Amino acid sequence: MTSPRFEAVTIDCRDKHALATFWCALLGTTVRGEFGQYLGLHAATEGHPRLVFQQVDHLDEGRSRVHLDLDTEDLEADTARAVALGASVVQDVTDFGVQWRTLADPEGNLFCLVPAG
Amino acid sequence: MTSPRFEAVTIDCRDKHALATFWCALLGTTVRGEFGQYLGLHAATEGHPRLVFQQVDHLDEGRSRVHLDLDTEDLEADTARAVALGASVVQDVTDFGVQWRTLADPEGNLFCLVPAG
Repeated sequence: MTSPRFEAVTIDCRDKHALATFWCALLGTTVRGEFGQYLGLHAATEGHPRLVFQQVDHLDEGRSRVHLDLDTEDLEADTARAVALGASVVQDVTDFGVQWRTLADPEGNLFCLVPAG
Repeated sequence: MTSPRFEAVTIDCRDKHALATFWCALLGTTVRGEFGQYLGLHAATEGHPRLVFQQVDHLDEGRSRVHLDLDTEDLEADTARAVALGASVVQDVTDFGVQWRTLADPEGNLFCLVPAG
């Protein structure tokens, strides 16, 4: 079975354009695209995970403002695998017609399983 | 000038062994090494950033528990570049004979500049 693949690091933020400007200039990359509250950068190194900025109205300081996004070939199987390892399901999200799932690792660090493609 | 390179994602945690076990099993990778409070995994995908777990006595919930580590060829030049872009220097750290620098991006997200090698 294929493991889910570390695909992006998503950072909650107040101003996704300002933060993207900073990180693009620092890492030497450019904006890949923008959709609703999300703004993604091209990977600075070919094949690397991308940075994504998610603009939120209120930063919830109690949760981490950074999380990992993992691509999955099989959402249900990888969810079951993660839960068997000690993760917990936080919520299902459907946004812009795409469905993914937020989980928390055994210490509560959030990560998302996103169907590949 | 070479941009600093996204090299690792470091996660503060209470139990680095337990968390490493979870993430190794989920991503299909293995432990690369352990040094003091740090435990690093091999990149699950060749050339990808690595995950590093940093065991801390007290999780400071006010700061993000996840941060990016960037390799740099020139610590002072990349610090100046980041500060000119709106970052601020948080602290210099010397641990196990290695010196690196913690900065905060314009919204306060911590990241480290680590001399390459």
